[in-house]
Amino acid sequence: MTTTPTTAAALARLLDEAAVRDTLARFADTATRGDLEAFPTLWAEDATWVIGGSEGQPFERRAEGVQEITALFRGLREEREHFVQFIFPGVVTVDGDTATARSLCQEAASGGGKFYRTHGVWTDTFRRTDAGWVFGSRAYRYLWLDFSPFSGDVSWARGNAA
Amino acid sequence: MTTTPTTAAALARLLDEAAVRDTLARFADTATRGDLEAFPTLWAEDATWVIGGSEGQPFERRAEGVQEITALFRGLREEREHFVQFIFPGVVTVDGDTATARSLCQEAASGGGKFYRTHGVWTDTFRRTDAGWVFGSRAYRYLWLDFSPFSGDVSWARGNAA
Amino acid sequence: MTTTPTTAAALARLLDEAAVRDTLARFADTATRGDLEAFPTLWAEDATWVIGGSEGQPFERRAEGVQEITALFRGLREEREHFVQFIFPGVVTVDGDTATARSLCQEAASGGGKFYRTHGVWTDTFRRTDAGWVFGSRAYRYLWLDFSPFSGDVSWARGNAA
Repeated sequence: MTTTPTTAAALARLLDEAAVRDTLARFADTATRGDLEAFPTLWAEDATWVIGGSEGQPFERRAEGVQEITALFRGLREEREHFVQFIFPGVVTVDGDTATARSLCQEAASGGGKFYRTHGVWTDTFRRTDAGWVFGSRAYRYLWLDFSPFSGDVSWARGNAA
Repeated sequence: MTTTPTTAAALARLLDEAAVRDTLARFADTATRGDLEAFPTLWAEDATWVIGGSEGQPFERRAEGVQEITALFRGLREEREHFVQFIFPGVVTVDGDTATARSLCQEAASGGGKFYRTHGVWTDTFRRTDAGWVFGSRAYRYLWLDFSPFSGDVSWARGNAA
Repeated sequence: MTTTPTTAAALARLLDEAAVRDTLARFADTATRGDLEAFPTLWAEDATWVIGGSEGQPFERRAEGVQEITALFRGLREEREHFVQFIFPGVVTVDGDTATARSLCQEAASGGGKFYRTHGVWTDTFRRTDAGWVFGSRAYRYLWLDFSPFSGDVSWARGNAA
C-alpha cells in the first residue's frame, strides 16, 4: 500500500511531538548534569526564560537571549553542589514550525547549607530550526516551594552527574 | 519506496500509543489545574472511576458515568487549595479500538489545614472515539499514603495553575 | 504519495525509540510489582547491572548475566515490603541495533524497620532482539540517598501491586 497524505501528516506530527519531548528531557538532563556546553544549544538565539514572578509568584528571575539565559543558568547551578530536575510527560501541541508545551516538574537542590525543593509547571514555546526544536521561551510557575532542610546524603553527587 | 502493510500498521500503533499517553498526561494537567471544563472530555460517557477500596485499600471513592465522575473530581478538588498530580511513563497496550495502561503516579495536596501525599498505580482502560482516546475506566491503587503535614509554601498556587 | 526513504527511516527510528522507552517503563513497572517472571525478559542473556560503586558512590551491587541479575533483584526486592521505582523521560539515542539512554529516577522503599529513598541517574545500553529491545547494561548513579524514616502508611502495599 502507498502512504496516504493523512498518514504522512500523522507521521510528521509524531516526529515533531517526539522532538519537542526530547528537548524537554534534554533540558532536565543538561540542567541536572550542569552541562554548560549542551545547555545553550537547547535555546533559540532570542529566547526568553522566566522563573516565577508573575501573579505574586516568589523568586523572580528573568533572562533574554541565549547568552543571558546561559549566564542565569550558570549562576543558579553554581550556587548548588547538588541539583536535580525531574520533568514529567506534558501536553504538547505542534502548529507548523512552532509548538507549545505545558509540563509538570520537580526540583531538588542543596549546597552551602541551603536547601531548595519545588513542584511547578513549565509553559514553553518551541521553534523548529535546522538543528531541531529549540526553546523560544520557558516560563516556570511555582506550585510549591520549600527551603527547609532535608535529610540524606548527596556528598558524592558534586559536579557532573553523567 | 512504498509503505508496506507492516509499516502502516506500525505507524498506526505508534499513533494510538501516543494518543493514549497524551490522554494520561492531559488528566494530570487537567486535575492539577482544576479545569472542570476539560476534565469531562477525557472520559467515555459510561466510564467508571475507582480510587482505593479493593483488597484492604483505604479511602474508597467510586463514580460511574461522566457526570458522577466529574462531580467526584469537583468535590475532591474543592477540598484542596493546592493539588498536583505527577504521572509517569507507563506500560501501554493497544488492541484495536481499546487500550490498557498501567502507570505510576505521585500526588500532593493541602488545604484547610489538611495534608495529603500518595504514591500509587493507575490501571486504566481506554476507548477510541471520534474525538480521540478517552478513559473507559480508571482504578487507583495506593502504594503509600501520608496525611502528615509537610513544610513549604503553596500560598500563590490557589486556583488554576495554568 | 509514496513514502520517501527519509520518511521510512524516520518512522523506523521513532519505533525503535518508543520501544526503548517502553523497556525503561516496563522495568519500573516490573520492579515495583516485584514481578520475577517478567523481570528477566527485559535483559540480554549476558547483560550487566551495576548499582552505585564508582567514583565514591555508596552501596555497590554488581551482577553479570541474566540469572545473577535476577537473583540480585530478588534479593533486593525481598528485603522490602514496599518498593516503588519512578522513571522519568530520558535522553535516548538509537544506533542501528543498539541504543543508549540516560534517565533520571526516584525510588522509595521500606520494610523490616528500614527505610530507603533515592534520586539518581540510570545510564543504560540496549540491544535489538527478536523479542524487542532489551537491556545490555544498566548502571545506576546515586545523586541523593536517604535511609532516614519517612511517615505514611504502606501496610496494604505488600506483595504484587498490580
